[in-house]
Formats: sequence, C-alpha cells, structure tokens
Amino acid sequence: MAVEDLNILPHTPTPSVAILGGTGQAGRGLAQRFSRAGVAVIVGSRDPDRARAAVAEWAHTGGPPIEADSNSGAAARAGIAVLAVPFATVDLLLEELQPHFTAGALVIDVTVPVTFTAGKLTMMEVAEGSAAEHIRARLPPAVRLACAFKTVPAHLVGGSGPLDCDEFVCGDSDDARSEASALVTLLPGLRPIDVGPLSRARSIEHLTALAIAINRRHKIHDARFRIVGF
Amino acid sequence: MAVEDLNILPHTPTPSVAILGGTGQAGRGLAQRFSRAGVAVIVGSRDPDRARAAVAEWAHTGGPPIEADSNSGAAARAGIAVLAVPFATVDLLLEELQPHFTAGALVIDVTVPVTFTAGKLTMMEVAEGSAAEHIRARLPPAVRLACAFKTVPAHLVGGSGPLDCDEFVCGDSDDARSEASALVTLLPGLRPIDVGPLSRARSIEHLTALAIAINRRHKIHDARFRIVGF
Repeated sequence: MAVEDLNILPHTPTPSVAILGGTGQAGRGLAQRFSRAGVAVIVGSRDPDRARAAVAEWAHTGGPPIEADSNSGAAARAGIAVLAVPFATVDLLLEELQPHFTAGALVIDVTVPVTFTAGKLTMMEVAEGSAAEHIRARLPPAVRLACAFKTVPAHLVGGSGPLDCDEFVCGDSDDARSEASALVTLLPGLRPIDVGPLSRARSIEHLTALAIAINRRHKIHDARFRIVGF
Repeated sequence: MAVEDLNILPHTPTPSVAILGGTGQAGRGLAQRFSRAGVAVIVGSRDPDRARAAVAEWAHTGGPPIEADSNSGAAARAGIAVLAVPFATVDLLLEELQPHFTAGALVIDVTVPVTFTAGKLTMMEVAEGSAAEHIRARLPPAVRLACAFKTVPAHLVGGSGPLDCDEFVCGDSDDARSEASALVTLLPGLRPIDVGPLSRARSIEHLTALAIAINRRHKIHDARFRIVGF
C-alpha cells in the first residue's frame, strides 16, 4: 500500500501521524517505520526538548523528516495520534490532550493492561472491560478510536528484524478500523485483521497477555500470532 | 509421539480416554483421531444406546475399537475424561459424573463460554473467570484438570483435512499439563503450547472468541492460531 492510499487526512496536504510517548521502544519503532513508508511523523513527549534530542539520533530514515513536539502540540497538528505510552500513564496523557484534539481525529490505542507483581504476570482489572474501552470513555465524542499494534512485540517494532505476524484491529467505526488497518499495512510483514467493534479489544488484550506468558514460560522473546485459515 | 510415551494411566494396561458428550462433532473427531493414534477410546453419552449406534458408524479407524457407554460409565473406566459438551450443559454433566471419578483422573476441558444472541457473538459472564475455573470449582479435589483443544475449530477436528495450528494447554499441575500436551501431540498437525496455570484459560477462551469473530466477519470457517517466534 502506498501512503497516498491512506487518504487519512483530507484536511491536510499529507498524512501525518503523531506518536505520543514516542521516545519509547514501540513509539520509536512506529515513528521510524511510518517515516520510511512516507508518512510525516511528529513524535510527542512530555519533554519536547528531550524528544528533539532523541529524535535527532534516529530520525534519518530516508523518509520525510520526523519532527518532535510536546504531546499536546503533536496531537493538535496530526490527524492521527498513536498512544504509545504504558497503560498506567494513559489517563494523565488523555487529560493533557483533551482540549487539543481536533474533531474527527483518529486515536490509535496500542496499550495493554498487564502488570507484573513479584515477577508474576497479571491482567489489570479495567472497569470498562479493556484498555481500549477505558480510553474511549476519556476521549471527546468527536474523536474516533481504533486499536492496533497491541500484539506485535514492542522490541520487534523497535528493531530491524522481520515482523512476520498478524495484527488485530478493532474500533468504534468502519472508517476508524480501515484507517488503522491501512497504518498496519504500512509496516512490511504485518497483516491487519479487522475483528470488529471496540469491545473486541478485550480479546486482543488477552492475546498479548498470552504471548507474554508464553515468552516467560518458554524463555523466548518474540511470541506473536498468525491466523491460519485466513 | 507413540502412544506408549503417554504413560497416562499407570493403573491400566493401555491408556484409555473417555470422550464425554462424544457423539458431537468435536467429540467424534477426537475419538477417531485418538483411536487412530492407538488410544483405547470410550465414547460417553447421556443415552448409551444412541452412542453405541452412532459409534458403530464411525468406529472403524484401524486403531483399537471405540467403545460406547453412559457418561458416568465411560468416566469411571478411563483415566482421562474429555468434556466434549457445550459449556451450557457442563454443570449437569459434572453433577452426574461427580461420584464416578477415580482419584488422580485427569479431566480435559475443551469448552468455550460463548453465546450467540440475535446473531451477535458474546462471551458469557463466568463468575469464576473462565469455563475452566468454573469446571475446576465443580470437580473433586483429587481430580486433575487441564484445558486443551479449545481453539482448534470443532468441524476441523471432526473432518479429515489438516489441522495445522497450535493448541494452547493450561492446567492445575505440571503433570496435568504434560499429559494434556501429550494428547494434543497425538493429533498430527497440532502443536501443544503449555501456557501455564489454569487461570490462563481466560486468555485461551478469548482466543477462541476472537477466531469465531474473525470467521463471522470475514465469512471464513477455519480461523485458528499459530504462534510465530516459538
């Protein structure tokens, strides 16, 4: 898929994507991979100066320059905002972003509500049923939400090896899901699978928990999913 | 793996497996496939005469003869009992079986707590967190429990095509998991993946729900999982 096919931001000349909390492993990997695919990327961070310094080190992708900004500045400038922060800090980020979203913007939730207590993996109890639904409850109604990049391991996204797996997409509207799927397709080796409404995030987040459990139990690092029969 | 490697029933001369509710699609497929692998299979049914008539039609596998009995009769005679009934009827079955289990028996839970309301797939609210934990709460303490065969589609198990996927195993003890994994290995094309304690059934059951959702959404039938990176 070419970046032109994305058609994700009719109100700006080129598609642009904000990666919020974008200096972490997953955020950096997504920023670099989107940039390589021709997307204008703005990395958001609590500390824009730190973001600028970090981005300067890894922004030479051959694609459009990767910019850096505050989280709210990046969100205000892009039509798509990826929440690349740990689930535990997403409330704080959403509160900060609240007045800066533009109507019709698309938020991509990549978070997974897992926690490690005394080395034991558990899924956090999320009152809304999933991290995605928790986030939906904290977004303005005019902002759309889709989930993607929840099951591909962050260190693979941040690395240079093949991704080679399926990535599950759900969302609160057909267009949110198809735009998120288009983003997934920009990463070579990832196949998007549309699994329907946002509530399916519950199952997607369980997939991630299971992959982490498999990694820990079998002392591997890269467990991820491929759907057979599709 | 040869059937001798199973070593699952030290107190009987040959390993034997009861498939309870064994005249359904998944039950029949498991009975035939275990028999082909050399396992002595006893199909249990509420109506043993009906079971005998059904089994007579498909018991010629080239392996040991497949017998038929009542559910409680089959459970009492086998060291391993597979609960191949819909989750909605498992309470009734467990009540009937209660006095017939032998100490140390292994129960294999293959159920998935999903329901279709007005054509819409939903996961049933199970107070214990998963079908497996619900079943655990209704088994005598001396009976062991493992989950397997929850994600491979029942009609594939009942058919003759390749299974070609991974099958997730969890259970309440190391030996329960390794015996369940050995059973999975008896089916060509299935790879068992031990994912740990019984509570992981929550995630396994979400995998099945997601596969069903993918089938319905994309008008396919055989969605199942393969772990990449393992």
